[in-house]
Amino acid sequence: MFEAAEVGRTLSKKDFKQLEPEVHNLFLQLQRRLRESDKTLVVIIAGVEGAGKGEVVDKINRWFDTRDVQTHAYWDETDEESQRPRYWRFWRNLPMRGTISVMFGSWYTRPIVDRAFGKLDEAELDQQLKKISELERTLSDGGTIFVKLWFHLSKAVQQQRLEEDVKISKFKKSPLLEKFSKSYDKFAKISERALRLTDSGCAPWNIIEASDARYRDISVGNIVISALQEGLLSNEPENTKISETNTVEASSAIKNALASKSSTITVLDTIDLSQILTESDYNKQLDQLQLRLHKLAWQMYAEKRNALMLFEGWDAGGKGSAIRRVTSAIDARLYRVIPIAAPTDEEKGHHYLWRFWRHIPRAGYMTIYDRSWYGRVLVERVEKFAKPHEWLRSYQEINDFEEHLVDHGMALFKFWIHISPEEQLRRFKEREKDPRKQHKITDEDWRNREMWEDYKQAVNDMVAHTSTDRTPWTIVAGNSKLFARIQILETICEGLEKTLSTEKK
Amino acid sequence: MFEAAEVGRTLSKKDFKQLEPEVHNLFLQLQRRLRESDKTLVVIIAGVEGAGKGEVVDKINRWFDTRDVQTHAYWDETDEESQRPRYWRFWRNLPMRGTISVMFGSWYTRPIVDRAFGKLDEAELDQQLKKISELERTLSDGGTIFVKLWFHLSKAVQQQRLEEDVKISKFKKSPLLEKFSKSYDKFAKISERALRLTDSGCAPWNIIEASDARYRDISVGNIVISALQEGLLSNEPENTKISETNTVEASSAIKNALASKSSTITVLDTIDLSQILTESDYNKQLDQLQLRLHKLAWQMYAEKRNALMLFEGWDAGGKGSAIRRVTSAIDARLYRVIPIAAPTDEEKGHHYLWRFWRHIPRAGYMTIYDRSWYGRVLVERVEKFAKPHEWLRSYQEINDFEEHLVDHGMALFKFWIHISPEEQLRRFKEREKDPRKQHKITDEDWRNREMWEDYKQAVNDMVAHTSTDRTPWTIVAGNSKLFARIQILETICEGLEKTLSTEKK
Repeated sequence: MFEAAEVGRTLSKKDFKQLEPEVHNLFLQLQRRLRESDKTLVVIIAGVEGAGKGEVVDKINRWFDTRDVQTHAYWDETDEESQRPRYWRFWRNLPMRGTISVMFGSWYTRPIVDRAFGKLDEAELDQQLKKISELERTLSDGGTIFVKLWFHLSKAVQQQRLEEDVKISKFKKSPLLEKFSKSYDKFAKISERALRLTDSGCAPWNIIEASDARYRDISVGNIVISALQEGLLSNEPENTKISETNTVEASSAIKNALASKSSTITVLDTIDLSQILTESDYNKQLDQLQLRLHKLAWQMYAEKRNALMLFEGWDAGGKGSAIRRVTSAIDARLYRVIPIAAPTDEEKGHHYLWRFWRHIPRAGYMTIYDRSWYGRVLVERVEKFAKPHEWLRSYQEINDFEEHLVDHGMALFKFWIHISPEEQLRRFKEREKDPRKQHKITDEDWRNREMWEDYKQAVNDMVAHTSTDRTPWTIVAGNSKLFARIQILETICEGLEKTLSTEKK
Repeated sequence: MFEAAEVGRTLSKKDFKQLEPEVHNLFLQLQRRLRESDKTLVVIIAGVEGAGKGEVVDKINRWFDTRDVQTHAYWDETDEESQRPRYWRFWRNLPMRGTISVMFGSWYTRPIVDRAFGKLDEAELDQQLKKISELERTLSDGGTIFVKLWFHLSKAVQQQRLEEDVKISKFKKSPLLEKFSKSYDKFAKISERALRLTDSGCAPWNIIEASDARYRDISVGNIVISALQEGLLSNEPENTKISETNTVEASSAIKNALASKSSTITVLDTIDLSQILTESDYNKQLDQLQLRLHKLAWQMYAEKRNALMLFEGWDAGGKGSAIRRVTSAIDARLYRVIPIAAPTDEEKGHHYLWRFWRHIPRAGYMTIYDRSWYGRVLVERVEKFAKPHEWLRSYQEINDFEEHLVDHGMALFKFWIHISPEEQLRRFKEREKDPRKQHKITDEDWRNREMWEDYKQAVNDMVAHTSTDRTPWTIVAGNSKLFARIQILETICEGLEKTLSTEKK
């Protein structure tokens, strides 16, 4: 999840100065429409210490007309509060229709902290998170628009801030920053679970890279604007929609500006595509890894453990040849490859996850998916086959699905094979020249290529929402096919060894 | 919950013979419309052993055209199934769009059994139930119409069946009936929790009294018809709705017939209204109970425990005078009475639960609600102030809310003061005669009286959905005001003593 917020996004001072007035203006416009609606806006500010959450709260208060905005810091409890059921303090401060509440700290704080300090076990944490989901659904059904913001810093950046804090401005030193940075990894793991279990269609999470303050603030602006627009449109009569086209246009301008000026950087850009492997190194490693995999597959069979691998990636990224290097190492009785193309009639007649559930391997066997359920949040999103509320909902559906798999003790591998657009072009042209490969290149491939930036954003969001501690994505550096294959085989061998070393449930 | 399914509803053979063909006909009509839609119907058959679940499955299969109906019994697992993640067996059998699946046994079976035999603790059970809720929401979002049926028998009736089984038809003796009847109470408690946590707006539970087979079967028919009608209407274009008025009319005929012929009996009819108390007995008991309550209230204060009481009931049921008997026993510093009338502007501007959260007492104190959040599923339902999807959703919202209260360690009392319509009439007339009481009787009271049967049904459903082991309803026999007051005071004293004997969380 968080890897998608460690890619180094920044925004220049000049761009910030240009964008901020537009954001400010849209905030005011949308606030006027909110005032006339029967909705409320709740902004939840959460995330790691040192990310500048306080500054964000200040910004939001500056951009909105503060008359209708209330900020509530949920920090230590008053005795009034601690003597009542836990959610009383939140209910008492819920905004009235037409108004806005900014929650600095929230119902997430205590479960996460309690779990980190061992006051809750995992099932109890899940129980708390279920209550939060229920609360958010109740409020959402009652007309609350949720904007949940999680501000993230990498461990290194947080550490750096801690040191800067000490050196530069003594008066700003936060005792919490020091306390929490010591258990960074523990908090990251628990927070990830909290986000994953409460990342619903009606109250989705937004993970924001917070190392650059200007990028952070404009991202917040952008997210709040989109959420308000969508939330306010949903139950307005048709004719009012038209009169609001100005706002919509203005806000897509911000989105585009932000995209062109900063966030073309995604998690994919953190992959070093220059990594290569010589033919002889490759051959040596390939032999070793395939032998290792061969043995591991039989061992999985013997211990009745199952495994599932899925491959996604750019067209011409080398999925097929990578899969062949995997399958040629495994006894043919032990695996099946399921290529995912257009669904059959029967598959179309079912929930989109049905076609994937049906091929789940049984104990001792492996299934390899060539493309997968992630089509829902990739091609179906980019090509607009699925509506936004449908693919947004899918993140949680997919996470739930994969949790069933790993709960069962299954080894799960998710590969995105990444190549540069230049490398793709080279391969496309090569395919066109080679009569044996011409069938592999179609008009669709060229069309998809034009949507490169859209796909890139979709991949980034996919990783942000679905790469969890238990179900991580592996982004493969694919410009060198040899390097990619070795990276994949190594990941699989290590993963299977890890699975075999843990007890089956 | 289950008390509303232990009231002795029956249906005569003659009425059954008249209603069954209508049900059959509507099943076929609705099935045709389902076939043309992009929806699926999933009927979940669950409940206690000996309730005749198998017979219900047969009926459903007879009423539908069986070509599109698949029945799946989830009983013992095949090795194919046990070697895969738990939900695989359910996913593999999900119906295609336009078709129907009847699940005899379901994803509920295993968590309930595992909890009963101690394989899961409470938090783990909740975790499993959360997964079920997620699954049902995922499928519902994908177009599945859920009909979840829970067949209930009282402990006595189940025991009787067990004996009959043994005596009458040896070949029909079910070994499970015997096994499960031994742990009836344990199963009832766990099942109640399972129903409560999964009783959502998109997949609500129906608890069916199963002691009379004819009533049971026609109820099933009625529920399936309503669910299909609502589910199929929801996303059809406006013009097709009109052409279907015939079906709608026919189905309300069934509903009315079933209502007039059997289910006028509700949980309220199980209350013995003939119970009275002599003046002298009353005075003696009142003194004792008020003294006991006085001491308990101070003890609650000393131990920093809080309590919440709510009073609902028929107009002229005697709520006010009962509340006075409670409050006159408690030191005025320790309690507050909150009368719930029309909401203030500020209250209207918030979620309907907000006005109730705000008066939650702090540690050591008590709040008494004269009418309460149950208005949502009583007057707002009957008077159609809330839409069906809104008040249906409210059961779960209310249950979640009350769970927050009891989780905190609060003592919670919910009283419905029941009187007969004849007694109400007598009191209305008395009030009209008495100048000091004339102000208490309004046109609205007479109007409400005309809706008696609707309110009765709403009260029955309210008890069925919101009376749980931890948050039970007390239905007070109110024809004798003296008897009612003593019953209320006794309930409160016992409840407070129980609260004081359990540890605060």
